[in-house]
Amino acid sequence: MVIVMALDATEADVAAVVDLVEAAGGEAFVSRGLDRTIVGLIGDVDLFATLNLRSLTGVADVVRISVPYKLISREHHPDRSTVHVGGVPIGPDTVTLIAGPCAVETHEQTLAAAHMAQAAGATVLRGGAYKPRTSPYAFQGLGEAGLKILADVREETGLPIVTEVVSADDVDTVAAYADMLQVGTRNMQNFPLLQAVGRAGKPVMLKRGMSATIEEWLMAAEYIAQRGNLDIVLCERGIRTFEKATRNTLDIAAVPVAQRLSHLPVIIDPSHSGGRRDLVLPLTKAAIAVGADGVIVDVHPHPETALCDGPQALITSDLPELAEAVGTLTEVTGRTQARSLTPA
Amino acid sequence: MVIVMALDATEADVAAVVDLVEAAGGEAFVSRGLDRTIVGLIGDVDLFATLNLRSLTGVADVVRISVPYKLISREHHPDRSTVHVGGVPIGPDTVTLIAGPCAVETHEQTLAAAHMAQAAGATVLRGGAYKPRTSPYAFQGLGEAGLKILADVREETGLPIVTEVVSADDVDTVAAYADMLQVGTRNMQNFPLLQAVGRAGKPVMLKRGMSATIEEWLMAAEYIAQRGNLDIVLCERGIRTFEKATRNTLDIAAVPVAQRLSHLPVIIDPSHSGGRRDLVLPLTKAAIAVGADGVIVDVHPHPETALCDGPQALITSDLPELAEAVGTLTEVTGRTQARSLTPA
Amino acid sequence: MVIVMALDATEADVAAVVDLVEAAGGEAFVSRGLDRTIVGLIGDVDLFATLNLRSLTGVADVVRISVPYKLISREHHPDRSTVHVGGVPIGPDTVTLIAGPCAVETHEQTLAAAHMAQAAGATVLRGGAYKPRTSPYAFQGLGEAGLKILADVREETGLPIVTEVVSADDVDTVAAYADMLQVGTRNMQNFPLLQAVGRAGKPVMLKRGMSATIEEWLMAAEYIAQRGNLDIVLCERGIRTFEKATRNTLDIAAVPVAQRLSHLPVIIDPSHSGGRRDLVLPLTKAAIAVGADGVIVDVHPHPETALCDGPQALITSDLPELAEAVGTLTEVTGRTQARSLTPA
Amino acid sequence: MVIVMALDATEADVAAVVDLVEAAGGEAFVSRGLDRTIVGLIGDVDLFATLNLRSLTGVADVVRISVPYKLISREHHPDRSTVHVGGVPIGPDTVTLIAGPCAVETHEQTLAAAHMAQAAGATVLRGGAYKPRTSPYAFQGLGEAGLKILADVREETGLPIVTEVVSADDVDTVAAYADMLQVGTRNMQNFPLLQAVGRAGKPVMLKRGMSATIEEWLMAAEYIAQRGNLDIVLCERGIRTFEKATRNTLDIAAVPVAQRLSHLPVIIDPSHSGGRRDLVLPLTKAAIAVGADGVIVDVHPHPETALCDGPQALITSDLPELAEAVGTLTEVTGRTQARSLTPA
Repeated sequence: MVIVMALDATEADVAAVVDLVEAAGGEAFVSRGLDRTIVGLIGDVDLFATLNLRSLTGVADVVRISVPYKLISREHHPDRSTVHVGGVPIGPDTVTLIAGPCAVETHEQTLAAAHMAQAAGATVLRGGAYKPRTSPYAFQGLGEAGLKILADVREETGLPIVTEVVSADDVDTVAAYADMLQVGTRNMQNFPLLQAVGRAGKPVMLKRGMSATIEEWLMAAEYIAQRGNLDIVLCERGIRTFEKATRNTLDIAAVPVAQRLSHLPVIIDPSHSGGRRDLVLPLTKAAIAVGADGVIVDVHPHPETALCDGPQALITSDLPELAEAVGTLTEVTGRTQARSLTPA
Repeated sequence: MVIVMALDATEADVAAVVDLVEAAGGEAFVSRGLDRTIVGLIGDVDLFATLNLRSLTGVADVVRISVPYKLISREHHPDRSTVHVGGVPIGPDTVTLIAGPCAVETHEQTLAAAHMAQAAGATVLRGGAYKPRTSPYAFQGLGEAGLKILADVREETGLPIVTEVVSADDVDTVAAYADMLQVGTRNMQNFPLLQAVGRAGKPVMLKRGMSATIEEWLMAAEYIAQRGNLDIVLCERGIRTFEKATRNTLDIAAVPVAQRLSHLPVIIDPSHSGGRRDLVLPLTKAAIAVGADGVIVDVHPHPETALCDGPQALITSDLPELAEAVGTLTEVTGRTQARSLTPA
Repeated sequence: MVIVMALDATEADVAAVVDLVEAAGGEAFVSRGLDRTIVGLIGDVDLFATLNLRSLTGVADVVRISVPYKLISREHHPDRSTVHVGGVPIGPDTVTLIAGPCAVETHEQTLAAAHMAQAAGATVLRGGAYKPRTSPYAFQGLGEAGLKILADVREETGLPIVTEVVSADDVDTVAAYADMLQVGTRNMQNFPLLQAVGRAGKPVMLKRGMSATIEEWLMAAEYIAQRGNLDIVLCERGIRTFEKATRNTLDIAAVPVAQRLSHLPVIIDPSHSGGRRDLVLPLTKAAIAVGADGVIVDVHPHPETALCDGPQALITSDLPELAEAVGTLTEVTGRTQARSLTPA
Repeated sequence: MVIVMALDATEADVAAVVDLVEAAGGEAFVSRGLDRTIVGLIGDVDLFATLNLRSLTGVADVVRISVPYKLISREHHPDRSTVHVGGVPIGPDTVTLIAGPCAVETHEQTLAAAHMAQAAGATVLRGGAYKPRTSPYAFQGLGEAGLKILADVREETGLPIVTEVVSADDVDTVAAYADMLQVGTRNMQNFPLLQAVGRAGKPVMLKRGMSATIEEWLMAAEYIAQRGNLDIVLCERGIRTFEKATRNTLDIAAVPVAQRLSHLPVIIDPSHSGGRRDLVLPLTKAAIAVGADGVIVDVHPHPETALCDGPQALITSDLPELAEAVGTLTEVTGRTQARSLTPA
């Protein structure tokens, strides 16, 4: 941590900084320049953060140098991790395709979508039973009835399931059915929810908040990790910008950036970022090429009657091209498609 | 709602749109241009929204025309509303100053801050007992012990209290102590929380999400209203942009924009938007001048030891200038400072 | 300047940094922490900036501490400056109202708009003869014929004129007519244009780029200052964000922030930031209350036939309220309205 | 174009809209709903745009439906175009690698960089002689001396050259040396410059403004096209967002979006968008996978002494991996690497 003193800071101001840091058990190195003095701090950064150095007289700025997360950082854990979802790996050696409907509507629709997912080569099924919706008048999901449908479809297809949980109260219920819990973009900083999924004993897919920095996203993962759960998969799903042609702007560089900072796997959601069916295939290719550890896509047997996000769902005739693209790009990036490691 | 057909849409595509709308009980007017055809829909927009018209063949775009919220809209409720917090009004005839510490730390600190608030002319006390923090290693608030301190300080000073609630599970507890429940920026789209505060029987202060559009903010208020609670105060607290000199960018125009769209009162938080003590006073002046129905500011008796957001808190020597600025601008904007309507 | 070494930097890496800095005539102070080493540099920052320290092996980050502009900085010029436009001051003691049509269309329209400006209390006339337009099919301005109209109207009304210049080639022509040259938002980083207006011998109004940080805006002013012209007025006109209810988001905090960093006057354009006539008055009030040194507004005698930005122009019936608001807020902020210091 | 009337619009207001449209030679279809009336317009949209319909009494909104650009639109030109740069194609059948130093510094450095470019498989050389720099104290480029170096290196290597032009005044000079003119991100809306390059008779690479929407980018291309030059290549180079880990956020979806809207080729700059050497390779892979028609990368023989953007330049040891990645991804996306079609 570096303290930048103001131009008009006095020697007494500098001494006050040094005293406070030393009283807290740290060391302070003073460097005096022509215009300014800076003070470098050595010691426990988290302790320094509680000192409110920024509010001392004569302090112009406080520059933090080390990353504020620990458990998920790659600094002391250089190997990238693999998370297993019902026997299917998500990690550096594989590319995992996750597919399914945005929302679970009926058993028939979910089973049809699961068959579509398998036709595309997916080995994990996605589907929402609890839907956070911007409008209180929009379809909010089937709740536990939807979870039962997902569990039935898992039985019939062998696909492990990932599904969203929107409230700390629902975590136990969702964890009783799901193979992986999803925390959505609007809940990335719902800290009670993060702590609850951290205790649930199931892998977690953490979507990036639509206006979260990568650092905040990693801090949210740290919340989960701090409760003892390191089976976290980060999912980039687009950030909010001024561009209107797409629902969100896919931050493709977030994949290599997050992979360098954290050992956790990182996947991409090309369906929700673009919000347009015609962008799913090109963004899927880009995702695998950039090094994402997986891709999660919306498919729907009848998007024209979908209760949620129909315009972005792939349809049956799109699947061969998706399957081929995923296969080809996985191969040229030196990986294999993730398959279940447990006997069917 | 207007359906814009693609350039290459066929007559059959247009007919399919018309049929679907009419089957749903609506009316469709077709306008054929040189290049394009558009279809205007008349009827129940919420019903049309479920039709997934955007995913029909030949449809290029669907343009929604009416606002998607109802209960809080000014369209059918032209008079602006006043919300009462422990007897203190927030509404079009008054300017309400709310002040207090970012976080409740001790009884002594909270009481001192309350006296500071009163010295500045505040008639409502703010203070956080449950703190949503980006880092799991930061101070998370005192919880119910903090609520008890707030209640004691209310007893001693007569100031009604507003305090944040971060989880639907805590709503009953917080409502047992507080005069007004605050939903913070990170929880603006925590829909279970919105529904819970909508049922709690206490006024709600709804902060704008740091990357929420005004429309999404109003939709979040609609969630609360839909549970029967129209005592909602909207609070603009800055949005996330590329600018780094301030923590967030105060969207001052959001006040008149939201006041034209909704009948709910709108206040401004100059402390959290700027994140800098030296901006609190100028932004407070701007807030009252632009027509905000109130202002909520951080004050702290000892910001250099504050456990949360010390750099932005006003200190005792700032208060006379704040009091004078609020008084003057309230007067020149033709309003009065809000005072408790109940006998002390 | 502070060099942050990577976690795995070697002693040789640190030595290489020190050697390079010392060879350039600077001093380097090494502070070794538990995890990391940092190196503080003392000396000529601009020289250090050319060393590409960031690309040295073992360097994780380079943190610049001092501001990168000099001539316009308040660090060595603590008093705020006043710029005079045809005898009318813009500076800390006054509030200057500038008004006029977005584009000069005819003599009659410009004169009528000038009379409107005067009715509102404006003492400088704005009006565009060269219009940068997003579409090549939109009205591009009258060019020099428009300048002549402006000069004639100045003759008739006594109002000095500010008008935009969009190309370095046109600077001499525009300077021959105008009292102040405006550099528009799209040209804030048109460096040849900045240099040309810096040499033109006329005051300059520099609009903030719609996606420029305050630091970049000040750097653009430094370009002008560097050519010998310190008569620069900064104009905040809204930045681009995700919000759609307004054309741009007025960054009201930019006024006090820029005024603390630079000695130059700062004004606000409430017409172009909001893009809506109904927001001009509230944003004007906010601008004066926050401490802006002036306001520049669009007025038009017949906005329904305006060739540019009609929807945001004030009309005749709006003027009394504008005049009253400017007068009242100027007074309560302890300033006077700027009037020409030269005899009419 | 659709006119949305306000809730309180009268029949007279609607009639005024219809009259104005019909007087301008258009047709107006009125659709009356329960709450609102909308008016669909058929005819010349550019003419309607001049009517200022938005400022009529009773008009709530005006929704434009057709795209505002024509010459570069794919609506009436469905086949995607190929642009030739000194004999090297950029278009749908090929992937073109452009490489070179950010700035031309010396003949030796430029030649070495050109050999690096060739080693990576590049067939066009980039290099800046005129550099737009945020700070007036930064290196501004060698000017015409730099152009001569580029021309000499073209002679020695056979590589056609693309170089930036920052002022309309310099267009003729730059066009005398270069095979392709680059318009940089800060000049995307420098309309005199766009018009000048439109007349210069050389292909143009138009970088997207760092805060420009895709529609504004295409409008800027329309400016060039309108002067008779359709040899335009669009270059996505990252947009400005709140994310700080990268210099800009590469909007990878802009490639398929722009390719669907316009027939012009679209390439990606992975060096300037990320601003980090370690991101160049993954972003290059993503660019080709998503369907970009080419990639432009910074290479430098000695980035630690580069006068511009050293931290992002690839070095010699990076080239084999770049060459291999470009080759592989070009092949799996069914294209070939672009080579000169003219004999060496």
